[in-house]
Amino acid sequence: MAAMGALLKFGALLLAAVAACVAWEDGDVWDYDGHKLKDSDFLALWPLPQKVQSSAVSFQLSASRFQFTHAEGSSAGSDCSILQNAFRRYFDYIFGFTKKDRDQRRRNAAGSEVLELQVAITSPDAECDGFPSLTSDESYELSVDQPSAVLKAPKVWGALRGLETFSQLVYEDAYGARNINKTGVSDFPRFAHRGVLLDSSRHYLPLKVILANLEAMAMNKYNVFHWHISDDQSFPYVSRMFPDLSQKGSYHPYTHVYTPADVKMVIEFARMRGIRVIAEFDTPGHTQSWGFGQKDLLTPCYTGSSPSGTYGPVNPILNTTYDFMAGFFKEISTVFPDAYVHLGGDEVDFSCWKSNPDIQKFMDQQGFGKDYSKLESFYIQRLLDIVSSTDKGYMVWQEVFDNGVKVDALIHVWIWYQGGGYKAELARVTAAGYTALVSAPWYLNIMSYGQDWRDAYKADPCNFTGTDAQKKLVIGGEACLWGEYVDASNLTPRLWPRASAVAERLWSDQGVRDISDAYVRLVQHRCRMVERGIPAEPLFTGYCRHEYSGV
Amino acid sequence: MAAMGALLKFGALLLAAVAACVAWEDGDVWDYDGHKLKDSDFLALWPLPQKVQSSAVSFQLSASRFQFTHAEGSSAGSDCSILQNAFRRYFDYIFGFTKKDRDQRRRNAAGSEVLELQVAITSPDAECDGFPSLTSDESYELSVDQPSAVLKAPKVWGALRGLETFSQLVYEDAYGARNINKTGVSDFPRFAHRGVLLDSSRHYLPLKVILANLEAMAMNKYNVFHWHISDDQSFPYVSRMFPDLSQKGSYHPYTHVYTPADVKMVIEFARMRGIRVIAEFDTPGHTQSWGFGQKDLLTPCYTGSSPSGTYGPVNPILNTTYDFMAGFFKEISTVFPDAYVHLGGDEVDFSCWKSNPDIQKFMDQQGFGKDYSKLESFYIQRLLDIVSSTDKGYMVWQEVFDNGVKVDALIHVWIWYQGGGYKAELARVTAAGYTALVSAPWYLNIMSYGQDWRDAYKADPCNFTGTDAQKKLVIGGEACLWGEYVDASNLTPRLWPRASAVAERLWSDQGVRDISDAYVRLVQHRCRMVERGIPAEPLFTGYCRHEYSGV
Repeated sequence: MAAMGALLKFGALLLAAVAACVAWEDGDVWDYDGHKLKDSDFLALWPLPQKVQSSAVSFQLSASRFQFTHAEGSSAGSDCSILQNAFRRYFDYIFGFTKKDRDQRRRNAAGSEVLELQVAITSPDAECDGFPSLTSDESYELSVDQPSAVLKAPKVWGALRGLETFSQLVYEDAYGARNINKTGVSDFPRFAHRGVLLDSSRHYLPLKVILANLEAMAMNKYNVFHWHISDDQSFPYVSRMFPDLSQKGSYHPYTHVYTPADVKMVIEFARMRGIRVIAEFDTPGHTQSWGFGQKDLLTPCYTGSSPSGTYGPVNPILNTTYDFMAGFFKEISTVFPDAYVHLGGDEVDFSCWKSNPDIQKFMDQQGFGKDYSKLESFYIQRLLDIVSSTDKGYMVWQEVFDNGVKVDALIHVWIWYQGGGYKAELARVTAAGYTALVSAPWYLNIMSYGQDWRDAYKADPCNFTGTDAQKKLVIGGEACLWGEYVDASNLTPRLWPRASAVAERLWSDQGVRDISDAYVRLVQHRCRMVERGIPAEPLFTGYCRHEYSGV
Repeated sequence: MAAMGALLKFGALLLAAVAACVAWEDGDVWDYDGHKLKDSDFLALWPLPQKVQSSAVSFQLSASRFQFTHAEGSSAGSDCSILQNAFRRYFDYIFGFTKKDRDQRRRNAAGSEVLELQVAITSPDAECDGFPSLTSDESYELSVDQPSAVLKAPKVWGALRGLETFSQLVYEDAYGARNINKTGVSDFPRFAHRGVLLDSSRHYLPLKVILANLEAMAMNKYNVFHWHISDDQSFPYVSRMFPDLSQKGSYHPYTHVYTPADVKMVIEFARMRGIRVIAEFDTPGHTQSWGFGQKDLLTPCYTGSSPSGTYGPVNPILNTTYDFMAGFFKEISTVFPDAYVHLGGDEVDFSCWKSNPDIQKFMDQQGFGKDYSKLESFYIQRLLDIVSSTDKGYMVWQEVFDNGVKVDALIHVWIWYQGGGYKAELARVTAAGYTALVSAPWYLNIMSYGQDWRDAYKADPCNFTGTDAQKKLVIGGEACLWGEYVDASNLTPRLWPRASAVAERLWSDQGVRDISDAYVRLVQHRCRMVERGIPAEPLFTGYCRHEYSGV
């Protein structure tokens, strides 16, 4: 076969920067004879890798013989728990539905079987015991041939992505046997920050639900779990230093909280999948639930000259507030290993502050006049100083930038319509030199009848007016599933595969935009998630070979 | 206590007619002292019974002592499998979360415990071995007192509804003990036909999903499962007489079909819950999948003077078509015991018929001119004659009426906007003397962000311009969940509790319309469904004591 003569040759395609609004190249996909292929010829690949070279030559895989091995010279070995765990996971995914092996009779002629996937971590430090970070190298190169396939990656993080791709390349033939075609893949993410936001305050999300969604995130090469853990409705995080916060502010102090052990488990489960856990403790608004367990933290609202009995945002004029925040965020900085914490800062309602005579007096003293956004900035500025002292970086919602706070923060753009829309906001944020993260087009809690994944897919974080330098400041985005209308009963099917659309936008080349092609692949990818136990909902009519087996 | 002195007295509140657009009375709810209560004082009751009399006097129930018993003189005994099964089911619902009984120490003073629920079937034939029907008596009276509660119903169908109500009256006190208040209920449905349509053609629905939804239907006092079993996309029904229909027309002939044993199980599972199974085999449109397994059934479409290779609706001009239908519906009439079959008849696209020269010739011969609705009527008329000969009644979608077919069929109104809207259609259908069924405001597959159950709740089948006689012709309605975007992964949470809103509209008195009150009760009812294993989605922020434990 002529195709066999072609050699796989990949240049050293290293991820040079964390941002990729400036296209690297066109996401070409070609076969070994140099014929350009349609993306959908790779039915199962999602998100589509940067470069794929394929052929019609197929090999078999046998559940009784196939092995994942550590390549000679790899800096990771059998003591690398991230890889060992991944080997088990992907073996299950690949051979999950196979019956007890009886294929001795059907052994192929020598040379038509892939016996192993050699995994080589090529940099001296594989980072087996580390945590993923914003600058983690997730690139990998995969070469599928017989008798050995080879997966090369500088770090374990790239190996995890390559294992997912390898598992997606395996398909069942008519006899149920596992097959894989001769393939070369060279891959890396377009954006460094690819997140999913879940909200465990509007509804408590049992651990099982969070873990299942981390599994699904790994299947879609997401690398950030943005945990919007507290809000007005409940405070489920059990703080060692301030246990009353959850004792009094959660829906239920035993059944509807996250204990330190729970949080640890989420972080470790995520680490195993190359996923960062960024906790959000949103202040000074969205904090009603904090008030039950922390005296004087919230601002007392007034009706006329007397307290009304209700409370507003965090009280920004008391020293006790900042003492509390210093203690609280010191704890958070040790519990959550990620270098970033999300500080919220969105949707602060000024009416309670306006009603309170002590706040008014403070405004006068500070010379803020009637501009309450200055008071908000005053609070945020002090909070940022506190968090900086814990050696954490921080993310904030766009209002903090809009209000003119000057800080080295990641600005999270979420407002769809206001101020010229989110594209104008992206232009402003990056023009001011800030790093930006996009969520505005990806509020997946909002949904409509039919295939609304298409709109999510079409949006692009770099589709705004700005210079190349500005676009490099966009480091990624997040699909947000706010919790008002979702809990354990419906969260997972509502999120998947709609969040898969966002995943491809954030991973694949900017040129990967053909929606009919995406449809064909996503239908397959959705069935793969279903076969792996994730109740991802259907895109349209049709069926999966193995339907979801829950209720 | 003064309240104790009042005696429960209920008149003989029998369901006189199957329709109830003419209000019986105002759905009053009062306590034993004659104080009118808000509906939401009965947190757990859904749908709200016609009459409830309650008091603050509470009794306990012990898992080790409580029994369901057959009252002396009841026409049903321990050989009545419908009741025996229901006793087991409701015992589990009531005591499900109780730990192994350790309450001997906490036994109450004599007289504060309900030791049994005596079930009395008062008419000579309990119908234990029968199937529910359009004229089944579902009325019941429930009196909760100590030491015995009494449930009286003319038939088992009413007893099933009363058992559901009894189970909803039980609540957990602060110690986890089961309690129930002294209560009297007199109840019957406003409408005789209260259905849920599921579509197993656009997506195959595994048996487990269908059964779980029958469970949920019983919790909401639904009594019809409208099984839209076949459509263009797939034909999953395994016919004994025409096995090729599913062999060639299903998504998969072994894994994505309903065998005769499956169908039997669905029917029996439904019967145990007082639910009728009405199968819909929609023709002449919506039949693409039929064409694979039945030669010459569909009309060949033409491009110019030659067949295009595609097919249109059932071919109405061949005798073989009617021979097939006669055989097929004879089988259906024996497989499905219900007295009604749904024959579809909606959305017939005339373009293929128009393209076919043989059809054109037939039109000329029959003198139909260019009016293809006459051809459709010709087909439907012959089909109805065939089905009539199997002694079945039939339901049809509104187009059959719109096209002027004159038959004794139940007209199913589904089109929201056309011809002055569904209310105008209801006026026309009933003015012509036809019995009508309403689904137009209850297409629950269509959904929007937020609390769209409210619109479903507000709609009323009798809200159209017409005489009392016309309104009596409306015998109920159905919530429809068409299958384009739902399968095993997401069907159940998308349907519940949105279909619960429709359930109350169809069961409770016309005067039960207070939406804030409904919200309070529905939140509780949704948590009850969750506790019983149904992943009903949340209405808004909040929590359930026992969250859904699946993924």
